[in-house]
Amino acid sequence: MEVELKQLNADLQFLSQSLPDPSHHALLDKIQLRVEELGKLAAAAPVRRSKVEDMSAEVVDSNPYSRLMALQRMGIVENYERIRDFSVAIVGIGGVGSVAAEMLTRCGIGRLLLYDYDKVELANMNRLFFRPDQVGLTKTDAAVQTLSDINPDVVLESYTLNITTVTGFETFMSSLKKKSFCPNKEGSGVDLVLSCVDNYEARMAVNQACNELSQTWMESGVSEDAVSGHIQLLIPGETACFACAPPLVVASGVDERTLKREGVCAASLPTTMGVVAGLLVQNTLKLLLGFGQVSPYLGYNSLKDFFPTMQMKPNPQCSNVACLKRQEEYMLAKPARDAAAKAKMEAEVLSTEEVPLHDDNEWNISVVDDVELDGPDTRSSDVLPEGLTHELPSADEFHEATPDAPVADNDDLEDLRRQLEAINSA
Amino acid sequence: MEVELKQLNADLQFLSQSLPDPSHHALLDKIQLRVEELGKLAAAAPVRRSKVEDMSAEVVDSNPYSRLMALQRMGIVENYERIRDFSVAIVGIGGVGSVAAEMLTRCGIGRLLLYDYDKVELANMNRLFFRPDQVGLTKTDAAVQTLSDINPDVVLESYTLNITTVTGFETFMSSLKKKSFCPNKEGSGVDLVLSCVDNYEARMAVNQACNELSQTWMESGVSEDAVSGHIQLLIPGETACFACAPPLVVASGVDERTLKREGVCAASLPTTMGVVAGLLVQNTLKLLLGFGQVSPYLGYNSLKDFFPTMQMKPNPQCSNVACLKRQEEYMLAKPARDAAAKAKMEAEVLSTEEVPLHDDNEWNISVVDDVELDGPDTRSSDVLPEGLTHELPSADEFHEATPDAPVADNDDLEDLRRQLEAINSA
Repeated sequence: MEVELKQLNADLQFLSQSLPDPSHHALLDKIQLRVEELGKLAAAAPVRRSKVEDMSAEVVDSNPYSRLMALQRMGIVENYERIRDFSVAIVGIGGVGSVAAEMLTRCGIGRLLLYDYDKVELANMNRLFFRPDQVGLTKTDAAVQTLSDINPDVVLESYTLNITTVTGFETFMSSLKKKSFCPNKEGSGVDLVLSCVDNYEARMAVNQACNELSQTWMESGVSEDAVSGHIQLLIPGETACFACAPPLVVASGVDERTLKREGVCAASLPTTMGVVAGLLVQNTLKLLLGFGQVSPYLGYNSLKDFFPTMQMKPNPQCSNVACLKRQEEYMLAKPARDAAAKAKMEAEVLSTEEVPLHDDNEWNISVVDDVELDGPDTRSSDVLPEGLTHELPSADEFHEATPDAPVADNDDLEDLRRQLEAINSA
Repeated sequence: MEVELKQLNADLQFLSQSLPDPSHHALLDKIQLRVEELGKLAAAAPVRRSKVEDMSAEVVDSNPYSRLMALQRMGIVENYERIRDFSVAIVGIGGVGSVAAEMLTRCGIGRLLLYDYDKVELANMNRLFFRPDQVGLTKTDAAVQTLSDINPDVVLESYTLNITTVTGFETFMSSLKKKSFCPNKEGSGVDLVLSCVDNYEARMAVNQACNELSQTWMESGVSEDAVSGHIQLLIPGETACFACAPPLVVASGVDERTLKREGVCAASLPTTMGVVAGLLVQNTLKLLLGFGQVSPYLGYNSLKDFFPTMQMKPNPQCSNVACLKRQEEYMLAKPARDAAAKAKMEAEVLSTEEVPLHDDNEWNISVVDDVELDGPDTRSSDVLPEGLTHELPSADEFHEATPDAPVADNDDLEDLRRQLEAINSA
């Protein structure tokens, strides 16, 4: 930019010297002033960082991935760079979806598919991500602009459409099936779908698509009064689908749109939406990179800082036909699943016996039996280097001490229903 | 911008027509091309929104505060616009502090004081907020640039200094005392200090300043392995200060800096830091605007989605002299505090009896006895409009059902110490 401005000024100088008529000089001075003004405006334009070929763990200020690759040295993630192979679809680029997209972009996700039909308004400025200068742009265009500046390594695909319309749903389905990014991938073309929409109809559309494609997805939501939210993991056939169990708040027999009135809007806070986006993407990372435990359902009540959890099995009487088909497949695959789990466990026990501890083990990282199927154990991260001590009890110790922890682990949907009915009628 | 460019082009056109020599035309064409290039670069420069005189609750797309003012209609906050009277100081503009600053800016906080001595690096890009084009700027300058574009209504003060140096600490102290923003305010010149630093020494400096000024503050932190974090409320004399009880992980007898080695860095994630910033600012809003319950301590274990809470009373043997002085004052003020609490309770019972329900009560908001001292009751937000039903039990019901919830409400610091010792020696 500065170079261009310098050359332009040099040209004008040269022109000025070669013009004999003083009347031209006045005009040239005016032009020079205008160029200066334009230069000032242009100086505020963003500069982009260049693409990075490989993720490096080198600890230098110029490495945008050093703090992420450090997760390997800390014993949290086995192979962080795998993140570049994953595709995540985000439906709804609002207060939660846009922040989720930014987090995944900064984490260096391989590919992001963004879906929204709305435009940026000043009324969105009370949530993170969008800027006042983006007002009037579609949310997808504005997001691509911001995200590509933050991390040019991420492949961004934007779909400006409404998935609840017939053509919108068709485009949504075909975009999820497209496998050009990772041709050898099993199943659909994406690894996970994140639902960040604000209405029941759109959630049901995501549910329908994911049930049809046997696509694992995560649901998220924030209450109308802005002070609570939740995330939920949905694996077709294995967990309850969105039609199996009702959401936090349902429109019972009333068209949802009639509940929205002229001059009335839902409240929202950047805090609640930021927390929900953070919990959503943290569970996404745990699921994709295989560390920690992925929460089946996690609520956030901000007034009391209370985080309810629970599990929901699929409903054998679910109204969604695709869900019933996935349930049947899941039941039929049980023997194969059990055999694979057993073989994996045996292989891991064997490999643990063979591998010696690293000689220069500065972070005290030890290999731990990975017996649980839902992710590696976290004990390795609890080991601290010499000179450091743990001040607080770990979650394990808390759980052991309190067998009656408030975790509603309801295997039986009927049980849950009865509890809810009792509460609602109270 | 477009207007300036148009005028410049018109001037060049006029000059071109008035020049008789064709050799000048070639030069002018070159200038015209350069102007076009410059125009393209300038087109990417941000446009700013203008200041807003009063916070309006009007539901129009152009109102940046409509979704926040809706918190009043939803019965969550009594007077949202009070937020414009508050000053918050944020120490450390890193992965947590910068996001906290953005959240408070988007909420329309009155004044933000920002402290940091560091510069933006590409290695910071795995966390939210800073952009690659800001590399090389001080974090305070980059933050002011971004925040003033997002919300020009917020008064921003930036201090590029290290609070652990003698002169840095003095400037920090005097900036907290300055009362020009709100001359009639009691105590210091700020309403809250948020500590978002990444080392023990800086936390002890914030602790010292707040103990000396009797300043309420909140502490935040994220673990070196990036997968856990915490926030803590510190009220000098009333709760444990940072020197009363050890932090999550302490350097025992070792200089913290010797633990950091060449080529080794801490891991960090935008998710964990985003969640911690969200919990921190949510509790800030609850404290300043008087809704919900402010958590004395809230942990976040992301591997298990576990959120431990506890309370810590001050240590009568604390090594910090200013803390002991605040403890003494707090004890002496007990009779006055009890009398004031009693008077407030009586006044509120009286006013509740007098105020009738609003005739046009479309959101079913009812006035609830505000007997608890730590904020209004939340029951009002649990009342839903017709056609909506609650699907999940509320936190109250969970708590009532599970008296053995994992909340370590240790009134006695000695008890806590014994528990920790038992755990550490296990």
